[in-house]
Amino acid sequence: MTVMDSARRAREASVALAVATRTAKDAALVAMAEALVSRTSEILTANDVDVAAAQAAGTSAALVDRLALNTQRVAGMADGLRQVAALPDPVGEVVRGNTLPNGLELRQIRVPFGVVGIIYESRPNVTADAAGLCLKSGNAVLLRGSSSAARSNEAIVAILRQAAAGTGLPEDAIQLVDSSSRDSVKELMRARGLVDVLIPRGGASLIKSVVEESTVPVIETGVGNCHVYVDADADLDQALSIVLNAKVQRPSVCNAAESLLVHESVAAEFLPRALAALTEAGVTVHGDDAVREHAAQVLPATEEDYAAEYLSLDMSAAVVPSLQAAVAHIRRYGTGHSEAIVTRSQAAAREFVSTVDAAAVLVNASTRFVDGGEFGFGAEIGISTQKLHARGPMGLPELTSTKYVVTGDGHIRN
Amino acid sequence: MTVMDSARRAREASVALAVATRTAKDAALVAMAEALVSRTSEILTANDVDVAAAQAAGTSAALVDRLALNTQRVAGMADGLRQVAALPDPVGEVVRGNTLPNGLELRQIRVPFGVVGIIYESRPNVTADAAGLCLKSGNAVLLRGSSSAARSNEAIVAILRQAAAGTGLPEDAIQLVDSSSRDSVKELMRARGLVDVLIPRGGASLIKSVVEESTVPVIETGVGNCHVYVDADADLDQALSIVLNAKVQRPSVCNAAESLLVHESVAAEFLPRALAALTEAGVTVHGDDAVREHAAQVLPATEEDYAAEYLSLDMSAAVVPSLQAAVAHIRRYGTGHSEAIVTRSQAAAREFVSTVDAAAVLVNASTRFVDGGEFGFGAEIGISTQKLHARGPMGLPELTSTKYVVTGDGHIRN
Repeated sequence: MTVMDSARRAREASVALAVATRTAKDAALVAMAEALVSRTSEILTANDVDVAAAQAAGTSAALVDRLALNTQRVAGMADGLRQVAALPDPVGEVVRGNTLPNGLELRQIRVPFGVVGIIYESRPNVTADAAGLCLKSGNAVLLRGSSSAARSNEAIVAILRQAAAGTGLPEDAIQLVDSSSRDSVKELMRARGLVDVLIPRGGASLIKSVVEESTVPVIETGVGNCHVYVDADADLDQALSIVLNAKVQRPSVCNAAESLLVHESVAAEFLPRALAALTEAGVTVHGDDAVREHAAQVLPATEEDYAAEYLSLDMSAAVVPSLQAAVAHIRRYGTGHSEAIVTRSQAAAREFVSTVDAAAVLVNASTRFVDGGEFGFGAEIGISTQKLHARGPMGLPELTSTKYVVTGDGHIRN
Repeated sequence: MTVMDSARRAREASVALAVATRTAKDAALVAMAEALVSRTSEILTANDVDVAAAQAAGTSAALVDRLALNTQRVAGMADGLRQVAALPDPVGEVVRGNTLPNGLELRQIRVPFGVVGIIYESRPNVTADAAGLCLKSGNAVLLRGSSSAARSNEAIVAILRQAAAGTGLPEDAIQLVDSSSRDSVKELMRARGLVDVLIPRGGASLIKSVVEESTVPVIETGVGNCHVYVDADADLDQALSIVLNAKVQRPSVCNAAESLLVHESVAAEFLPRALAALTEAGVTVHGDDAVREHAAQVLPATEEDYAAEYLSLDMSAAVVPSLQAAVAHIRRYGTGHSEAIVTRSQAAAREFVSTVDAAAVLVNASTRFVDGGEFGFGAEIGISTQKLHARGPMGLPELTSTKYVVTGDGHIRN
C-alpha cells in the first residue's frame, strides 16, 4: 500500500475515531496493552531478527541496545498504554466559553487534529507510545519508524490494530508506513489535506529536512543545546549539584545540559571544583581561555563546541562578564529548548526568565526536569522547540486542535 | 534595505519589545493613534498618488474603493489602535501552573513569538491594524503590503514608527518591506530563524503559495467556502433569514455563505420561498437538478460551483437525503471555515457539531458571526483555517507562544 493510500484510509478512520467516546478509547487502550503482553513472544521473535541484522551490519552496541526488546520492555510498553488510558480525554474539553451580548452562546472545544504522522528513529517502544497517545486524543496515526526496527514495528502494529479493532475502533486508525526508503518520508511531507500534522522525532538532520521540505504543518521537536548559567549570586553547592545532574544523569537525551556559563565573579571559586567534579564523572570539558586557566584537562572550545548538542559526556564552558552576556550567549547558540540559571538573586532570576527565549527556563533546578512525565502530563509525544502551536513537552492536549461552536435561535448579523 | 536586513533589525527590536510593559505598549499605541490623526494630510497625499495610479491602470472601482483613504477612514485606523490599547496584554498571562510533587513550581506563561511577518493585499488600513496588534502582543512586525498601496503604506508606517519611537519603543519593531516584486515575499518565506511566523492574508492563490513554499511556520487564513444546511427539522422562517443574511449581508468576506444544502423532506416547502428571496436579493443560484425543479432561474451547478468561494452574489445549492449526506458534502467541498445548521432537533444539532470539521460550527445562527469582533476578541489579525496553533478568529492571545518557567531550590533529578 502506498503512503497516500494509507493516508486516505487513516483519514477515513479518523472520522469515526474523532467521535469515539472516552470509554471506547480507553477500552481499546487496555485491550492493546493486554495484547502486547499476551503476544510478547511474537514481538520478541520479530525483534530478534532486527537485532541480528543490526549486529551483522556492525551497528554500535548502544544503538543495538536501543533497538532490543525483552519481556520487561514489552511490559513497559503495555504499562504506558494503561497509563494513557488513565489520563483525562482532551477531546471535548471547553477551552473557553461565554454568552455574547446578543445572546449567542460561544464555546471553544478541543477536537482531534484528524491524522497525525510520526517519523521516528530506532526505539520500537515509540511505536506503542505514539499509537496510544494518538488514539486517546482521537487521532489516526501514520507511524514511520526506522528501517532497522521494521520487523519489530510490524509485529507491534499488527497486534495493536487487531486489539483496537476487537473493541470496535477502526483498525486503520493505527498504520505503519513503509520504512525501506526515504520515499515514504517524502510522501508524508507532501500529503497536505490528508495528514494534518507531522511530528519528526530523532536526530537534528531528520528534523531539519522535514521542517524545510514539508508542505504538511510540522511540529519541530527535540534538539537541545541546553545551558546552565551560574550567576554571581549563585549558591555554589547548588550550582555544582545542578550542573552535574544536568550533564551526567542521562547525557544522551535532549534536556541534558551541553554548556556551562559561569559569571566571572565566581569563576575562580566555582570552576576548579566544578571542573574536577565533571572530570571525575567522566565529562570532557571544552572551554574558553578563562575556563582553561582553572584546569589543565579542559580542551579549547571552538564555535562548533558552543553550538553542539553533544548528547555525550562532553560539555562546553565559558566565563561571562554578566548575566546579560550569558543571555546573549544563549541567544546566539541555544536551540530554544531548556535553559537554567542558578542564583539566590530574585532580580537575576526575573531577568533571566524574562529575557531568555526558550521552551523552558529553570531557576535553581536541573534542565533534566523538562519532560512530560516530570511536568505531570502523564505521557509525552515529544518536546517542541518551535513557537507555533506547542512549545516544550507535549502531552495529550497538544495533540488536539479546537473548534468554535456558536449556538443561537435564529441569530442574523446586522 | 533587504528583507533579511529588515528581519535582523526586527529580531533585535523584538528583544526589547518582548519585555516592554503594558503601560509602555499602550502609551505607544495611543501616540500612534494621535499621530495618524494629526498627520492625516500626509497620509491622504500619499494615498492620492496610489489611487491615481490605480485608476490610470484601469483598476476596478471596487478595488479602488478598498485602496482609497479619507479623513474618516484614517480616524477609523486611529480608533482601532486605541481599541487595541484598551485590550488586556496577553504577554505574561499564566496559561497553567501548579506545584509538582517534588516542590518544583511550574508555570506556563504567554510570551511573544518575536517577529511576525504579515503579507496582505490592497487595503492600507490593515497596515495600522496589524502593526497595533503585533506591538500589543510584544511582536516586531514585518509588513508586506500590496504594491498598489505602497505610498500609503510608507506614509502610515513612517508615522507609526516615529510615534512608537517617541514613547521609547524601538522603531524597528514596525517595518514595511519592499512590495515592488514577489522577491520580498520569497525572502520572507526563507527567513527561518529570523521570522517566527508568517500570516498571509488575501486571495486563495497567495495563501496557497505561501503555505507550500515557506520554510517559516505559516498560519493559513481566510478561504471560506461556507455552507448553510437546512435540516429536516428546521424552523423554515429562521432558515430563510439565516440563509439570506449569510449570503447577502456582506458577500465579499470569507464568512459569507457560498452554498446552501437542503434536506429533501423540506425541499418542496423551503426551496421555492428561498430561491425567490435569494433572486430578489440579487443572488444567482447554481443548483443541482432537485433544486432546479423549484425555480426556472437556477443555473446548473458544476463541481467547480460546489468548490467555489464566490465572494459575490452567487450561491451553489443542493438537495441532500440526510444530515449525514450534508456533512459528507461539507467534508468534500468545505474549506474548514464556518459551517451552519438550521434545526430544531437537539440530536441533529449535536451530530452536526460533532461531525463537521471546521474552525466554527453554528447552530441556528448566520455564518457571518464568525469574526473576532463579534466573538468579543476586540480585534482580529485574521481567521485561521488551519488546525495547528490557532483555528478560527485570531485575537491577541493567538499572536503569542508560551514558555514554561520552572522554579526550585536546587532540585536535581533522580
